[in-house]
Amino acid sequence: MKAARLYQYDPAMNVQLKIEDVKAPTIKGPNDVIVKVGAAGLCRTDLHIIEGIWQPIMDGDGHLLPYIMGHENAGWVEDIGSNVTSVKVGDTVICHPHRTCGICLSCRYGDDMHCEHSLFPGLGLDGGFAEYFLTSERSLIKLNPNITPLEVAPMADAGITAYRAAKKAAKSLRPGAYCVIVGVGGLGHIALQCLHEISGCRIIAVDREPAARALCKELGADFVLDGGPNIIEEIKEITKGGAQVVIDFVGELGVENLCWQMVRPGGELIMVGYGGKIEVPTAHLVINEINIGGSLVGNYTELVELMELNADGKVKMHYSEYSLDNINQALSDFKNRKFAGRGVIVP
Amino acid sequence: MKAARLYQYDPAMNVQLKIEDVKAPTIKGPNDVIVKVGAAGLCRTDLHIIEGIWQPIMDGDGHLLPYIMGHENAGWVEDIGSNVTSVKVGDTVICHPHRTCGICLSCRYGDDMHCEHSLFPGLGLDGGFAEYFLTSERSLIKLNPNITPLEVAPMADAGITAYRAAKKAAKSLRPGAYCVIVGVGGLGHIALQCLHEISGCRIIAVDREPAARALCKELGADFVLDGGPNIIEEIKEITKGGAQVVIDFVGELGVENLCWQMVRPGGELIMVGYGGKIEVPTAHLVINEINIGGSLVGNYTELVELMELNADGKVKMHYSEYSLDNINQALSDFKNRKFAGRGVIVP
Amino acid sequence: MKAARLYQYDPAMNVQLKIEDVKAPTIKGPNDVIVKVGAAGLCRTDLHIIEGIWQPIMDGDGHLLPYIMGHENAGWVEDIGSNVTSVKVGDTVICHPHRTCGICLSCRYGDDMHCEHSLFPGLGLDGGFAEYFLTSERSLIKLNPNITPLEVAPMADAGITAYRAAKKAAKSLRPGAYCVIVGVGGLGHIALQCLHEISGCRIIAVDREPAARALCKELGADFVLDGGPNIIEEIKEITKGGAQVVIDFVGELGVENLCWQMVRPGGELIMVGYGGKIEVPTAHLVINEINIGGSLVGNYTELVELMELNADGKVKMHYSEYSLDNINQALSDFKNRKFAGRGVIVP
Amino acid sequence: MKAARLYQYDPAMNVQLKIEDVKAPTIKGPNDVIVKVGAAGLCRTDLHIIEGIWQPIMDGDGHLLPYIMGHENAGWVEDIGSNVTSVKVGDTVICHPHRTCGICLSCRYGDDMHCEHSLFPGLGLDGGFAEYFLTSERSLIKLNPNITPLEVAPMADAGITAYRAAKKAAKSLRPGAYCVIVGVGGLGHIALQCLHEISGCRIIAVDREPAARALCKELGADFVLDGGPNIIEEIKEITKGGAQVVIDFVGELGVENLCWQMVRPGGELIMVGYGGKIEVPTAHLVINEINIGGSLVGNYTELVELMELNADGKVKMHYSEYSLDNINQALSDFKNRKFAGRGVIVP
Repeated sequence: MKAARLYQYDPAMNVQLKIEDVKAPTIKGPNDVIVKVGAAGLCRTDLHIIEGIWQPIMDGDGHLLPYIMGHENAGWVEDIGSNVTSVKVGDTVICHPHRTCGICLSCRYGDDMHCEHSLFPGLGLDGGFAEYFLTSERSLIKLNPNITPLEVAPMADAGITAYRAAKKAAKSLRPGAYCVIVGVGGLGHIALQCLHEISGCRIIAVDREPAARALCKELGADFVLDGGPNIIEEIKEITKGGAQVVIDFVGELGVENLCWQMVRPGGELIMVGYGGKIEVPTAHLVINEINIGGSLVGNYTELVELMELNADGKVKMHYSEYSLDNINQALSDFKNRKFAGRGVIVP
Repeated sequence: MKAARLYQYDPAMNVQLKIEDVKAPTIKGPNDVIVKVGAAGLCRTDLHIIEGIWQPIMDGDGHLLPYIMGHENAGWVEDIGSNVTSVKVGDTVICHPHRTCGICLSCRYGDDMHCEHSLFPGLGLDGGFAEYFLTSERSLIKLNPNITPLEVAPMADAGITAYRAAKKAAKSLRPGAYCVIVGVGGLGHIALQCLHEISGCRIIAVDREPAARALCKELGADFVLDGGPNIIEEIKEITKGGAQVVIDFVGELGVENLCWQMVRPGGELIMVGYGGKIEVPTAHLVINEINIGGSLVGNYTELVELMELNADGKVKMHYSEYSLDNINQALSDFKNRKFAGRGVIVP
Repeated sequence: MKAARLYQYDPAMNVQLKIEDVKAPTIKGPNDVIVKVGAAGLCRTDLHIIEGIWQPIMDGDGHLLPYIMGHENAGWVEDIGSNVTSVKVGDTVICHPHRTCGICLSCRYGDDMHCEHSLFPGLGLDGGFAEYFLTSERSLIKLNPNITPLEVAPMADAGITAYRAAKKAAKSLRPGAYCVIVGVGGLGHIALQCLHEISGCRIIAVDREPAARALCKELGADFVLDGGPNIIEEIKEITKGGAQVVIDFVGELGVENLCWQMVRPGGELIMVGYGGKIEVPTAHLVINEINIGGSLVGNYTELVELMELNADGKVKMHYSEYSLDNINQALSDFKNRKFAGRGVIVP
Repeated sequence: MKAARLYQYDPAMNVQLKIEDVKAPTIKGPNDVIVKVGAAGLCRTDLHIIEGIWQPIMDGDGHLLPYIMGHENAGWVEDIGSNVTSVKVGDTVICHPHRTCGICLSCRYGDDMHCEHSLFPGLGLDGGFAEYFLTSERSLIKLNPNITPLEVAPMADAGITAYRAAKKAAKSLRPGAYCVIVGVGGLGHIALQCLHEISGCRIIAVDREPAARALCKELGADFVLDGGPNIIEEIKEITKGGAQVVIDFVGELGVENLCWQMVRPGGELIMVGYGGKIEVPTAHLVINEINIGGSLVGNYTELVELMELNADGKVKMHYSEYSLDNINQALSDFKNRKFAGRGVIVP
């Protein structure tokens, strides 16, 4: 089958994926499922993988190059293992990015993001920038057959990551409270829509790109800011002292040390983007009683919930389509923020 | 001042309020506030008061007839006691229906609905079917001066009662889950709007009145049913086994014993309407692990949150206006469900 | 193998189980596990089964007599299916009473008590009043090998049922609040210990049996009452107006309609026992804003948590031991409350 | 009256409080209360005040030296303002450290720690290192008259600060989970006792002082460590990968950057001590999905709950008594950790 593989890490991200013909995956265990890839989203983590940030973790797990990236996959069931009962060949499915065991205590609590035996195809194991993709039954959500994989593929990771962060935020966002979304790209624009649906809060969207800000307005953000040098003061003025919740989808380039300054006493910062380092005086944390927490992808059930919102027409992915042959152009456009929303690869 | 007073209880509800001239209230304590009534909503509890359901409680508290009903009040501050700092004469305000102490443990927990020293003007103490109304500082929420009391008065009780129920419901309503609203009058149509704003669930609205059902559709209910004899089966079919939450705004006439049968295992019934008696086998409660709970008005902070939703244009009261002179017509129309939404008296 | 089977239902509960030699179960599916029964607890549900209360459900599921009761099992792994990885032959285990699928949405949320494909050995399927018992991997919790099945078997159902109720109760029990435990037998005495460990509340234990009351005192209940005719007034006096939480382990014989009268405004009644019918005016539920909810067994993870409390010596089962040959004596003693704590059968 | 006043800040903390005769406070407003100080606890914040850490905040609020420190006060009501109803002269009381308004939105939510009009006697306003102390009605909790102020004074701040942190921790501490308490002085030893009462978790106590470790053992910590160079590895070994919750009562001297490394994926660090700076890679926060949050003193209701635990004999303050004349010795002993538990000043 045709696939795009990574052959080397490059901090400058100038490396290209190689489009080549490789052996298609086959069923090995009773719970395995082969998915014919309909679409695969492009993620900032893919850039971080190429950069080499994940290399120590991948090397440690024995995952060596070359391999097929792509962890936001949707398509149709092509083949199933002997124990699989909940999907059948031909079903339209979206794939939760993790393969989880269902037996460990985290899985038993429904918190499969912390599964002790989790596998993450696309990060080390072969992923979905290819015609076929191997996963397992517990990763699959069956979709209405009239849904096109292209419309939803990035929901698998960008989508739930944004939804999980929005859901955490919503817990402390009463009507009248403010939530700041910093960075409104592929994840942020989903978080914005989710917050509108599950919370009565007011939303302040911040992005340096005019196209992203235009999308924010279209999606109904209450305030849209360009993240200029006075951003902290602007936020404090709108919110009368700071936002109840700030979600940081950037997490690097200094943004991570602006965000905690936007939070009002008793409020919280949810980190989704990463790369930088937070430096915060303990006195600031204690006296203002603020909270800083990471948010990582999302549970299987969170993807189910997001797909329900999508099925009801409440949350939609904005995307730009690229063919698999054109994946290096997609990576370059992503790096240079040439598109708003998410880039999606169609094999 | 002009006021409408109740002179006797009548189970048949044929009695009329007497419109008469009475002494206007004056400031007695340092935290007192006199509000010039701009509008006062009409509530099903007013019908229950006339019926005599509340008589034992009122008699027990030493509240004797005649007195002025009306516990959904909004208007303008007319006079303030010596300690009052948070409002001033001329401010537009909405009045939380309870006068609370701020010192007892319930108040300290923010749960002022269970204040140990709570007073409830309109239920025994003189209320707002009059030109002026006595309350206290802790009951007042200052509104944007461009808000008309007529638009919001019933938010004070119908509104928060619906909002509190919706907020309780929202806690267990994930996207894709179903909430049934039984009875979509003055409270139900607010609950419907609130649920849309604070939860990603699907809403099934049930009402016997065509005008109420038309309003449900206009407000975006996902399903609108007429509550015919197969209502339980209809709900179970739509929801594939029962709704996660049912909110019963009727609570009498047999409806209260249909509602718990609509709840799916693990789900809950929230009772707001009252008058009937629930009879449920303990085995049904245990084996299905369902929950039945009353919901009573709402805390001060819940009214604040609701007014924020209203200020953002997210939740609006549908109402029919009546003059104070015409209050008996309003009561009669209410009894006979001649209007959708809420009846509001303007002095 | 030797087993005790039920051959007919009898509302008077005079029927005897037949001790006979039957074919031992064998591995059929890849996730199956055969457990050599070390001990099996006797449950009030066993009495209800014999009485015939469960007959409609069992008949509906196609479970016909005769069959082996016993759903509180602990022992040692005797044989495992081809896919089983988390236990091995010889491991000491306790068996969660349900066999769950791990794939349905309830299982994915960690709420396996509401598994759509749940099986309940001991209720229709053959259970543990026998030498061997068939279950599946997802039901097993591996124990420290020095734990004797006899000490813990009833934790599997009596234990988690009590723990789940205690855990629900603890959510609203602040230090200084009161919890009433009505009926302190096999479940109640575990709930009492659990509440002591996970909540700083005060405990009022109510039981008509002197032996049960003696056990309550030994276990540190703050107040121990005999449930006489003034029980509601006694509770209201101790608690100054009602208990925050009442847990009803009886649920029949009229007790179920006393319990909701013991609850303070804003409080809750948790039903565990069943058999009777609750009749409560909706006005009582609404005006007092109380909550009545069933509690059913418990999730796998709740059994894990309970076994941790047990491993730490914080919660211990009080039991009386009977041989399998003597099971009819055990049933009779249980019916007549001849022992405090739980009866346990050792094959 | 006799009082101890601070005349200058000193980063080296070599300055002495001056014991002198000053004018006793008098009732000025209707909600004021004068308390005859029975005992006043000594707090690390007092050291930080002397050091000058709080100077910018105090100067900003216009609080100039000299003034009387002391914010952990208990005693007897000496005089009351005209509106005060919930306490009377002679009542034994403990004083919540904040004077709150009861009107702002935070107070209305029961979250009076974030009161918009909060005053903090002892930090800028005159506090309790004196014979008499001015506070207001909303700050007072009436105690059983047989309680000695000396036994409970530090509960007012050290106590609730520890209790609030323990309560936050308990929310995610299931039986079998581990909580690490770093620094077991005046606050830590209360947190340890509270956790034992309100949670079924296992406790790992860490302190460099042998006397503190001895107290930990006496109070039933499951593990007691000396905080040597391998502390992170020791914690990870005991907890199999990290603790669910770490509470850092130190917050400076480098400890603050060890603590977040002790947290397991999905877990949290609660900061109570302060002074240092946290430096944490965003990737660590996100990939491990950990949470770092400050905890500040506690609400009025939290002090009520703690006093209930104390009244039930479940949580006790360990203290060393000093006379007011001897306060500089007390400060010096505190700085040099000459006593375990808390130092208390008796005027």
